[in-house]
This record gives sequence, structure tokens and C-alpha cells, in this order.
Amino acid sequence: MLGRLTISEVRPRTPNGCPAKAAVGETVPVAADVFRDGHDLVAARVAWRPVGDKAWRLEPLQPTGNDRFEGTLQPDLVGAHEFRIEAWTDRPATWHHHVAAKTAVGDDVSVEIEEGIALFARLARSAAGAEIRAALTSVVELLRSGASPLTVPPASLEMASAVPDPIDRTNSAKFRLWVDRSQARFAAWYEFFPRSEGGFTGASERLASIAAMGFDTVYLPPIHPIGLTARKGPNNTTESGPDDPGSPWAIGSPEGGHTAIDPGLGTENDFRAFLLAARAHGLEVALDYALQCSPDHPWVTEHPEWFRHRPDGSIRYAENPPKKYQDIYPLEFWPAEEADRKALWQACLGVIEHWMAFGIRTFRVDNPHTKPLAFWEWLIAEVQRRDPEVVFLAEAFTRPKVMAALAEVGFSQSYTYFTWRTWAGELREYLEELAHGPTVDFMRPHFWPNTPDILGGQLRNGPPAAFASRAVLAALLTPLYGIYSGYELNENEPASERNEEYLHSEKYELKSRDWDSPDTLAPLLTELNTVRRRHRAFQELRTIRFHGTHGNDALLAFSKTAPDGSDAMLVIVNLDPHGPQAATLDLDLSVLGLEADDTYEVCDELTGETYHWTGAHPWVRLDPAAGQVAHVLRIGATLPPGPVA
Amino acid sequence: MLGRLTISEVRPRTPNGCPAKAAVGETVPVAADVFRDGHDLVAARVAWRPVGDKAWRLEPLQPTGNDRFEGTLQPDLVGAHEFRIEAWTDRPATWHHHVAAKTAVGDDVSVEIEEGIALFARLARSAAGAEIRAALTSVVELLRSGASPLTVPPASLEMASAVPDPIDRTNSAKFRLWVDRSQARFAAWYEFFPRSEGGFTGASERLASIAAMGFDTVYLPPIHPIGLTARKGPNNTTESGPDDPGSPWAIGSPEGGHTAIDPGLGTENDFRAFLLAARAHGLEVALDYALQCSPDHPWVTEHPEWFRHRPDGSIRYAENPPKKYQDIYPLEFWPAEEADRKALWQACLGVIEHWMAFGIRTFRVDNPHTKPLAFWEWLIAEVQRRDPEVVFLAEAFTRPKVMAALAEVGFSQSYTYFTWRTWAGELREYLEELAHGPTVDFMRPHFWPNTPDILGGQLRNGPPAAFASRAVLAALLTPLYGIYSGYELNENEPASERNEEYLHSEKYELKSRDWDSPDTLAPLLTELNTVRRRHRAFQELRTIRFHGTHGNDALLAFSKTAPDGSDAMLVIVNLDPHGPQAATLDLDLSVLGLEADDTYEVCDELTGETYHWTGAHPWVRLDPAAGQVAHVLRIGATLPPGPVA
Repeated sequence: MLGRLTISEVRPRTPNGCPAKAAVGETVPVAADVFRDGHDLVAARVAWRPVGDKAWRLEPLQPTGNDRFEGTLQPDLVGAHEFRIEAWTDRPATWHHHVAAKTAVGDDVSVEIEEGIALFARLARSAAGAEIRAALTSVVELLRSGASPLTVPPASLEMASAVPDPIDRTNSAKFRLWVDRSQARFAAWYEFFPRSEGGFTGASERLASIAAMGFDTVYLPPIHPIGLTARKGPNNTTESGPDDPGSPWAIGSPEGGHTAIDPGLGTENDFRAFLLAARAHGLEVALDYALQCSPDHPWVTEHPEWFRHRPDGSIRYAENPPKKYQDIYPLEFWPAEEADRKALWQACLGVIEHWMAFGIRTFRVDNPHTKPLAFWEWLIAEVQRRDPEVVFLAEAFTRPKVMAALAEVGFSQSYTYFTWRTWAGELREYLEELAHGPTVDFMRPHFWPNTPDILGGQLRNGPPAAFASRAVLAALLTPLYGIYSGYELNENEPASERNEEYLHSEKYELKSRDWDSPDTLAPLLTELNTVRRRHRAFQELRTIRFHGTHGNDALLAFSKTAPDGSDAMLVIVNLDPHGPQAATLDLDLSVLGLEADDTYEVCDELTGETYHWTGAHPWVRLDPAAGQVAHVLRIGATLPPGPVA
Repeated sequence: MLGRLTISEVRPRTPNGCPAKAAVGETVPVAADVFRDGHDLVAARVAWRPVGDKAWRLEPLQPTGNDRFEGTLQPDLVGAHEFRIEAWTDRPATWHHHVAAKTAVGDDVSVEIEEGIALFARLARSAAGAEIRAALTSVVELLRSGASPLTVPPASLEMASAVPDPIDRTNSAKFRLWVDRSQARFAAWYEFFPRSEGGFTGASERLASIAAMGFDTVYLPPIHPIGLTARKGPNNTTESGPDDPGSPWAIGSPEGGHTAIDPGLGTENDFRAFLLAARAHGLEVALDYALQCSPDHPWVTEHPEWFRHRPDGSIRYAENPPKKYQDIYPLEFWPAEEADRKALWQACLGVIEHWMAFGIRTFRVDNPHTKPLAFWEWLIAEVQRRDPEVVFLAEAFTRPKVMAALAEVGFSQSYTYFTWRTWAGELREYLEELAHGPTVDFMRPHFWPNTPDILGGQLRNGPPAAFASRAVLAALLTPLYGIYSGYELNENEPASERNEEYLHSEKYELKSRDWDSPDTLAPLLTELNTVRRRHRAFQELRTIRFHGTHGNDALLAFSKTAPDGSDAMLVIVNLDPHGPQAATLDLDLSVLGLEADDTYEVCDELTGETYHWTGAHPWVRLDPAAGQVAHVLRIGATLPPGPVA
């Protein structure tokens, strides 16, 4: 049997009932369709709490048209939460509407006054809170005194409307909401290979520069012993020499597997010292969680049942015909015996627990889409039960629905297709999907202009302006972004025309870099990270809105605002690193808090320059040759009408 | 714990888990997102059955891109059905893809052949059906014989793919599907007031003409005794004379309530004779189910607890300030006492049962949106448990979400906003929503160009061409449509400019009509009902597609096709009854089964004329002054290239 009111299309939610996601301090939009039969008005609120709490916290929902009700909640604790929508007939407002309409045409309302007295007296009895009860009782007295029902104070009416009427109060099903710490939704990552810095000790010396650029997370490729069997040589060749370090993703050697440290990087104590140094610089360290084994991994001999054997007795190596990856054995996540499955999954959980004991709380997960979704749902829940602060980033460059499903089953953050979106139309379409589509309730996009695997698009043999432009986009389009080191030095040499690899990829070789190069983008990255921290607008994804550039697909104009509208930022990016681009903009002033004829100040946070603009159609031009790749404009004060300088 | 495969976004379904709807003989689209981790291919099917059957019926689903799988099912029994999606890893196809890729580059596949032998042998053991087992066993023998794996017959591979692999076969949750008789989705209704024909006996004499026009359902406004208290006079005046018949919707007098017959119409036996006459003409009779009472209804004295009393002791009459309906008391569907609620709901069910005993199987429900959704969910389920052939039409001209919710909880058919959609753009947008939006799974739109309450838009003081044009739209845009009698006589006089009532509305007066008028639209209605029956395309809603009219908003061009593509109809309607309209069309030839350069025959089913068109841009002109309001074109044979007459 249905409830007295209908409550449906509740947000936030995921397609298959997994928890939606929020973060501490986030303003989380909540919405539902709420309606009932007939013409009476209805009222609704969201009740929410951390799982285990007795008391519900309450926030009102407001009607926004077409039977939709909307509001927000702001979690302040990490962990599992639940919420439900509560709705009831708003009899005080319906009554008031009724008496006002009758009074307006001179009808007698004496019976309505009696009905009002009964209504407010009844609600006063069921209201929680002495203040509300007193207000409703004074309405009863006012009506009894013979005063016009139209003199009931609006504030008292509003209080009465907010009392859930026990006659037909209806609660929706409970929905789950997982709350992460705030870094899960707002962070700037920097990826680098400690081995190129001489191991953990040398890598520690890089931390000051990374922190100075404003990054808050350093992510390290796998730090474990690397297999010797079929070890890859420079540029992904199948022959390696004795000095070739091999790919860190070919995990495991006689020196250990996923819980060991590559002796070339240092000892456990060196690693602990590195972690301490990072913490001293305010940097969090993220480790790579790559569930695969080199043929030399201890599990291969200790647990052959965790691998798939072929009819000839060999273990199946990774293969995507005609490509072969003889240096990597995939794990068999569904072995024939249930006991083997449980043991493997527990071992995988043990790896996380091992590094959590070092204080690691962020894991970047390699290729999660090649492991079962059921495994991730189990693993992430187990880990976050141990510590709800743990964050997982899914490196799944796969099909859209699989990517979304990984986010749904628990991944905190997701790599995206950003790397393959270059021009304004496709960037806009993709951001609309990420920020305004249904996945925004549970999938947090993490933008990377490059990774050790991907040197893409305009960065390939690209000029410094390409690196600058893509950095602005990654840093300002989404609250989560990261770069792989070398980006700031405009490293742009592709391995070939056939794939997206770097020439002399650091995956197979040590890299030596000139960090003091005068061409470094470090100052721009520092600016971007500063402006991201300074402006609440850039910590939001949902508030992004796009503005017209007169059909110029090489200019992207977008704005972001703080949830309360207090901070409005407008960004215009030249997507063409090879020449100047100009356009008359077509701004949607309403989302910037402006009126059509306003003259207003815009301050470029990158250059410090201030302009005065009037109306929705300013003209902009960005010339990379003059060092201009973007305007990052704070919308400032509105100026009085009249001639301006 | 999730299954091995992910199955989500299943269609058909409703937002809150009520049954989706289908009808006997309908080709019902079924779809789901189906995917798993990794790169292996997956296969899926739909398993469905009448509730209570043991055996599932099975239909394959095919991948259509982006991890979507689609297929159809065709129910042949009325009543409750259930279905689920079943999916598994398609190891035969994955294996074949793998060996083909390796063979192409000359790699050794001897281990793959061993794997194939094991795979096909295993599937042969779990396959249902001797034929399939034999085919898979012969694949095993073929591979054992040393033949190339590429020689495995495609038909055998396909059979193997269709065997649900027990290793990871995953079943979705069960979804409910309610199957109505076919008339629930395809019918032509004719509404008339028997009292204007002198009661049931006179009304019987109208049936031959109604049947001759091709209608299949006659719907009668309430046939019950009408209250005297506050009875309405002509043109909805509050004063009535002794000869004024009153509104049939003011139900109940000392002569009885919802189970009685107005003596002015005849006796129960007269009604039975009318039903027999209707059946003899192939007409089904639909009754009005209007759950409200005149102040003289027996329930008012027998069951005062079913009405809402005001503080002064009076019963609350219907009121929407400043409007008052003193001749109608609403029922209180949630009285304070649960026992009273149960008794009232049972009494309402009793009314339906009473008329079912007369053989009535179709009810048009008056104002269902002013009664609780929970009531309808209960009532319709109770009735359809007694007889699944019963059909309910919801007369709910209310907000979109309430309208959809009524359909979701069980109404078979729904009145719509068609009456207020006049021009091509708004008609197109509305049909796209009805035919291609999510409600198509459970809401069947029923188009009425007029009702006794609504003389709207171009019909008000409109010329015959307006009536012709709106009849074509109603009859051909959706499988369900109806007219209220007098429409064929172009009755066009509005009561006032302020509302949509008819002047001298039949709701308050008897009407005398000249059925032999030479201006009757009966020939057009006959043509429309004939073409609807002849063409399966017009029995479909989902296959509607719109075609360009070069921006002319006064011309609507749409096509419909049979689900198997065998029947393609193209309709062009002039929406402007006052003058000719012309346009160069922009046809989407692919939906008509044509190629860009084809020359093809089009036959106008209204005029019998045949044209030869080439390409996507024929020119059309429709002049109402010449009797042309629409082309109803059957897309005929494609002609050989070359000059045509």
C-alpha cells in the first residue's frame, strides 16, 4: 500500500541502491517529487543522520515547480549516513489560501475560522519545541478573539506549515549517503617516480618544491619489488639489460610482493621518513594499488590457485590479442573454489591494511575495470569500515557505464575522458554530463592532463601554451585534478604516432630533469592552486555553467559559483595554443548574480588586472604569444550607472 | 553482494516499482544495461512468464552499443506477468574473437584449441535441448579432429553463446508487467448521453450509426439517479426548473445511488437490452465511475462517516474558492476511523462489482486525481484480480506528475493535454514525451478533441476544417482516441469567453441533433477508423517519428511503422483550418525504410490517389477550402530508377 503522499525521484541516489556520495562541508542538494491527490498544498523536509545516531537532523525542502521539492544538507562527519524525505499536507497554508480567496470575494468565513482554531490547536499539540507550540497557541487565541484570519502572522503560518501533520505524514524509504573527508572532493595531486630522484631519500628533497606549487597530494607509482622475468626495457621493448629498472606495475620478485618495498627505493624506514617529510610539508601520500603479479611474485608459487591455469599447465599471462604482456599475470578473482576466492580477497584487503598501518589513506587503483565490481564493493566497504577516511581513485579508462558503476560501488574519485576532450563543444558537453547528469550524485571526476601512460592531443610535440591551457582547464573545471611530473617542464615527445606513450617513458627508465629550467610552468601551477584554494567557487562541480563564445570552438567560457552565490568566478580559456583567439561573449548574467544592464568589475586573478564590463557581451582576446592563455576573473562589485573610466 | 555481471536500467518499468503495462499481441520492447569487468563479451536474454506459471519463456537480447541490450516479448495472455533479465559471459564468442585475432598474426593457438574443447564440452553438458547439445558436441569433435577453430560453424557458435554459462549466469531482480486485453491499447471511443436520445431504448437506435462510423466503444456519462438539492439549470445556472434534468455527475437521489439507474433512462432491463444491442453491433459499453455524491445520495444519511463534517455540523461540499459546487459532496477517503475507511473503499469496490455483473468491463473514471493514489492502487488491483479484462480510463486533467502517478498505480488509459496542443512544435514535443519518454512503459494516452466539459482551441466557433483536422490528429497520433457526440456535427458554440464549456451544454440540458445533416464529419471518421484498423502502424505509439516541414508550424508531418517495419504510414496535417498551408518536407527516409535516392509510391488512404515521390524533400500543399486537411499516405513500393510519369 502506498503512503498518503507520493514521494519519488529522490536525489541524491545511485542507479542500483549503493550509497550516494558527499564530503564533509559540502552543500549537498537534496530533491524529490512530492505530491498528493487533490489541490491541497504539501510540505516536505529531509531528515538525515549518521548511521547509528538516534536523532534525525532536519532541513526544509522548498517547492520549485512541477511538484519538485529541493533543499540542501551539509554533513560534518565522515562515514555512513542515511536520509529520508518526509512530507505531509500543508493544512495551515491550504487553510490560509482558502480563507484569503473567500474573503476576497466577500464570502463568510466563520466556519473556516472554527476550522482554523481546531487545526492550529491540533498542530500545537503535535509540534516539537516550546517556541513553536507557543506560536501556534497564540494563533488559536488570535482566531478565538475574533480577529480576521488574514492577520495571522506569516511567521506563525510558516512555523505551522513546518510541523509534520500526523494525519498523513509520509516518510520515503531510507537512502544511503557516504560522507568522505573534504579532500576526497577537493584536491590537487602531483604524481612522480621516487626512483628517478634516487629513491625515497632523494624524493623527500622534491617535496618542498611540490608543496610550494600548492599541491596537497603526492601519488607514487607502485613502490614494490619489480619482477625480472620478461622485464621490459626502455621504450617498452621486450629485452631489458641488467641496469634497466623495469615497470613498477610488474609487481613482485623474490624480495617480496605487494607488501614489500623495492630495495632500490630504500628501506621501510626510508619510506617512513619520506612520509614524515611529506606530512611536514602538508602533503598527503597516495599509493598505487595494482592487483596484478609479475611471474616472480611470491603469490605465484605460494597460491597458484589464485591464477588461471591453461590446459598445458602454464599460467595465463595478460593478453589482448595480438598484444601480450608476459611480464604480468592477472589474478583470478573468481577461482573455482569459494574458499580460494575468500582467501584471495582477504589477501587483497591485507595489502591495504598493511599500508594503512604506515598511515596511508589514499589509494590510486590501477585498472579497476578488469576486476569484478562485486570485489570492489566488498573491499571498499571493508576498508572504510576500518577507517572512513580512506579514499580510492579509480584508474578506469573504460566504457562509460563501467566507469560509472565503479564509482557507484564505492570509488571516491574517477579518472575521466578529459584527456581526449580538446575543443569547447566537446569539453562543454562532457562537463554538462559530469556536473549536471545523474552521476554527479556519486562520481567525482579527477582531471589529469597527462599521466605516465598518456601524452595526448595538443601536448604531443606541443608548445608551452598547450601545457598552460590544459593545466588551467584541469585545475579549474573540476575540484579534483592532478599532473604527472615533467608536465611543468613541457615534456612533449611522443614515443610514436601510433600510441599515446612518452618517448623514453619513465615507466621503463630513470628520468633526470632540470627542475630549475626557466621555462617551467611552476609559477602558473602555483597561481592556479592558490586561486583554487582562495575561491570556494572552484571547490564546486555542480555550479559550473557555460557561456557563449559566438561560435568560436577554440575559446571556452565557463563560470562557477559558491553554493550560496557569494563567490562568482568566470574563466575564459584559449584552447588554441598556436595563435590568438577572440570573441564577443554571450554571458548568462543571472548565474553570475548580475542584471542585464549592470556595469561590473572583473578582476583577473592571474594578472591582477581589473576591467569594467557592461552587459552580457564583452569582447575578449587571448594571445598565447603574449603569454595569455586564460582569464580567471572574479566578478566584483557592480558599479553605479553612468560613464566609467 | 553484487552479481558477477551488472544488470541495470531495465525497461519496461515504472518509477516506484508498480507493474509496467503491455497488451495482448503487443510487441513490447525490453532493454537493460548489461556489463562485467574486463574485456570479455557478454550475452543476455529476457525470461518472462504469467505469474503462477513455472516455465519461463525466453527471448534473446542483442547488444545495441554502449553496453545496452535490447529485444522484445509478445504476451498472449491477460493478467499479471513477471520478467527478469538473465546475463552471462559469452565465452564462445570471446574465445572465437581471441583465436581469430591470434590466427591473423600467425600465433600458435594449440592451447586455445584445448581451451575451446573444454569450453564447448562444458556448455554441451549444461545446455537445455538435445539439438543444442548435439551441435556443441560436434564442435568438440571438430576441434579434436585438428580442424582450425575458424571452421566452427557460425550457427553452432551462436547456439553456444545462447547457453547461459553457469559459471557466472546472473539474474536481475524480477520486474512486474501487467498485460491488458488488446482493446486497452487500441480503441476508438464515442461518448454520448442516452437521455438526449430518449433513454436506453432510443439510445439503442443510435448504435448502428456509431458502429458504422467504425467506433468500437460507447461511453455513457453516469446513468444513475440525479440529485434534486442544488440541481443545476441550463448553462450551469444555480436555479433549475422542474423539467431540468440536472448534471448526471451529481449522483444519487432517494431513488438510489451509484448502483441504481436513473428512471428517466429506463429500467435495469432496458439497460440490459441496450447492452445486448451494443454487443450485436460489436460495441463495448463503458460506464462512468464518478465517486461523489449529491446531497440526496443514500450514503449521505446511511454513512455520514464517509463525508467530512465542518465545525457547524454541515457536510463540506466541493469548493475551489471562490467556486462552489453545492450539488456535490466529496467522499472522505481517509476518515478518522480505519474501519470507516475500509467500509467506504469496499463500498466503492462494490459499485464496480455491481456493474461488472451486467457485463461492463470498461470504466471511465471521473476526476481520479482528487482521490488518493493508494485507493486506486488498491481498487484496480482488487478489480483486476476478479477479472483481468477490466479497463480503467483516468480523466485526470491535472499536473503531469500526478497524471503519470495515476497511470503508474494502475489506470489502463489516461486523458491527456492533447486538447491544449494546437501547433506543430507543441504537438511534436508532447508526443515525443508520451511516445519516447519514460512514461511510455506504463501510461497510455487517450486523445479527445472534445469532451462535454471542453470545447477548446480552434474548435471554438471553428469551421468544419478545424473539426476534421483535430479528428485526424486524435485518431492517428495515438492508438486510443475518442470523441464526444456532436463533434461530427461541428458543434462549435462556446458558453463564454471565460471558460471551455459548450453553450447549452448537454450536461444540463437534453440535446436534439440532426444526425442526417449533410455537413456531418461521419464519412471522415469512418475513413479514419477504417485506416486505423487496416494499418498496424496506427496501432503503435512508440514508432511515431516526426519529419520536418521547413519551419512551417501549421503543418505537422509524422510517420508510424509496424514494429517489424512491414507497414509504414506518413501523415501530413494542415493545422490551420482557415487557409492553405504548403511546405517542402524534410523526411527522415530511414524510418520509412527508404534510401536517399529512392523513387517510391505513396498512396493517400483518404482520397485513393497515388503519387510518385523521389528523395526526402517532396512538396505538399493542403487547402481546407478544397476539402484537404490531411494526407494519410501509405509508403508503397520503391520504383526502379529512371524517369517516372
